[in-house]
Amino acid sequence: MKKIVVIGGGTGNFAVLEGLKNYPVDLTAIVSMADDGGSTGVLRDELGVLPPGDVRQCIVALSDSSRLMRSLMNFRFESGGLEGHSFGNLLLSALEKVTGSFELAVEEVGKIMAIKGNVIPVTTHHTRLRMVLKNKKILEGEKEVYLSQEIDQGYESIYLEPYAEANTMALSAINNADLVVFGPGGLHTSLIPNLLVDGIVDALDQARAKKVFIANLMNRKGQTTGFKVSDYVSELVKFIGKDLFDYIIVNKGKPPQELIDIYKEEGELVENDLKESRVLEAHLLGDLKEKARKDLLKRNLIRHNSKKLACELFKIADNL
Amino acid sequence: MKKIVVIGGGTGNFAVLEGLKNYPVDLTAIVSMADDGGSTGVLRDELGVLPPGDVRQCIVALSDSSRLMRSLMNFRFESGGLEGHSFGNLLLSALEKVTGSFELAVEEVGKIMAIKGNVIPVTTHHTRLRMVLKNKKILEGEKEVYLSQEIDQGYESIYLEPYAEANTMALSAINNADLVVFGPGGLHTSLIPNLLVDGIVDALDQARAKKVFIANLMNRKGQTTGFKVSDYVSELVKFIGKDLFDYIIVNKGKPPQELIDIYKEEGELVENDLKESRVLEAHLLGDLKEKARKDLLKRNLIRHNSKKLACELFKIADNL
Repeated sequence: MKKIVVIGGGTGNFAVLEGLKNYPVDLTAIVSMADDGGSTGVLRDELGVLPPGDVRQCIVALSDSSRLMRSLMNFRFESGGLEGHSFGNLLLSALEKVTGSFELAVEEVGKIMAIKGNVIPVTTHHTRLRMVLKNKKILEGEKEVYLSQEIDQGYESIYLEPYAEANTMALSAINNADLVVFGPGGLHTSLIPNLLVDGIVDALDQARAKKVFIANLMNRKGQTTGFKVSDYVSELVKFIGKDLFDYIIVNKGKPPQELIDIYKEEGELVENDLKESRVLEAHLLGDLKEKARKDLLKRNLIRHNSKKLACELFKIADNL
Repeated sequence: MKKIVVIGGGTGNFAVLEGLKNYPVDLTAIVSMADDGGSTGVLRDELGVLPPGDVRQCIVALSDSSRLMRSLMNFRFESGGLEGHSFGNLLLSALEKVTGSFELAVEEVGKIMAIKGNVIPVTTHHTRLRMVLKNKKILEGEKEVYLSQEIDQGYESIYLEPYAEANTMALSAINNADLVVFGPGGLHTSLIPNLLVDGIVDALDQARAKKVFIANLMNRKGQTTGFKVSDYVSELVKFIGKDLFDYIIVNKGKPPQELIDIYKEEGELVENDLKESRVLEAHLLGDLKEKARKDLLKRNLIRHNSKKLACELFKIADNL
């Protein structure tokens, strides 16, 4: 079985993991530990735990357990002192407190949820994302970065504070991988925070694995306004130090105009400006009807279809 | 296998269930739904769920899963908006919200925790305990009853508000039982609230099962001050309508004087004043050293030993 490592965090790689778990591959998700928004942010502040939110999403994506258990993990309390907390976050944080180790907690929840594959926090250091904009404004934490509408005006630096060393399990997974997958996902909030962890870039550079980047479908207004596929790649290369992407997967399907219109206030479609042989174009869009039924959030209407995405990735891995 | 039904709630029947689960018996815990204190009370008020606390304790008592999972269920968050909540309570409440049914939630958690036996809420109606004291003071809710130090001055009435009908699963368990076990536990807070649920007393009256009462070790000051074993039985008989106890299990071991002294402010030892043939006296005390290591709460230092208690109960059941 080919070893595939997916690097990300947030909802971005949910589709990748959910799709790939149905293929005969050895799957590992390396998850950013920079999240500090919502329920995760409250738990970090109040309990001093590591951020559970992105890990929870990866576990649900890889889970082979009942629909009920998956719903339970994502269930959010709607009132009182628990308001906004997702149950899965509470489970991870309680287990971290009981075992004294976030990694053990992730392992246990992985067992409870019968996941196919592994979920590995990129670091187990308590760290926060920080971004200094060109206009000298400092964005403290991933949540502020996520909400900023000024990043496309340029930034001077983005870094983790304090310094965070990579989890040796993450390094070893990269080292042993046949294929490493980046994206899709928030460039500054999900992808780059992984590259800022000390040791990850070196491991990627030395790894014999082929590297794939899955281009996002949509730009986020104020963040990656006007970005084309090459801009995403350049931005990642800035942090990796060199262009080590062997494949770039790009969607060539076009969403219905009505959806593009609805989405206009949040961002526009990412155009592909690369015509190199490493660029693989395919129809990757989720079925609108199905998605619309599931989820009425505007920004979720234009999404990757997990099966189509996984099919492209498996073809690459299978031919290695 | 003999069918044993244990009626109670709270920490009282933890020892009974924990002990009996290691015997070849078909075990069912019928649990009071009147709890409204602590984490349970907050969840009832804020989420509108049924009280999870007593059910959680019974599930942990019957659980055959790892020590880690048992610790997780009893883990209490210590700070922030989650302060005071036990994780198991949150699990039951989240599952009740996700499934729309407390009974389904209890069943699912029972599966997750690999319990030996069944846990059945005595009713699935939302109800509260109310007690009117002789001095006309009204105690609203089990928590107020539990904390009151005036109950031994006499009360006029104790009832559930609103009216609560018995869970048919509870009636059927009583109906099919070979042995029904009452106590040990809080007389007004754990035992009587079960008898106040409409249908339970009739079911007990009609059941062919033998009935056992396990006498408490200690009286609670202001609640059952000066009660002897016969007083406990009389109080229960008042609600059941007749004395249907076939056996009364009484401890004959004496705790070390130092412990009785430590405990003096909370209450005194229950004296046995019954010399009938249905009274079974046995050494039932927990080992002090072991208990003291586990738990330094004063009122937990004088406790039943679950193995000794289960051994007495099994002897009765096995001879039926």
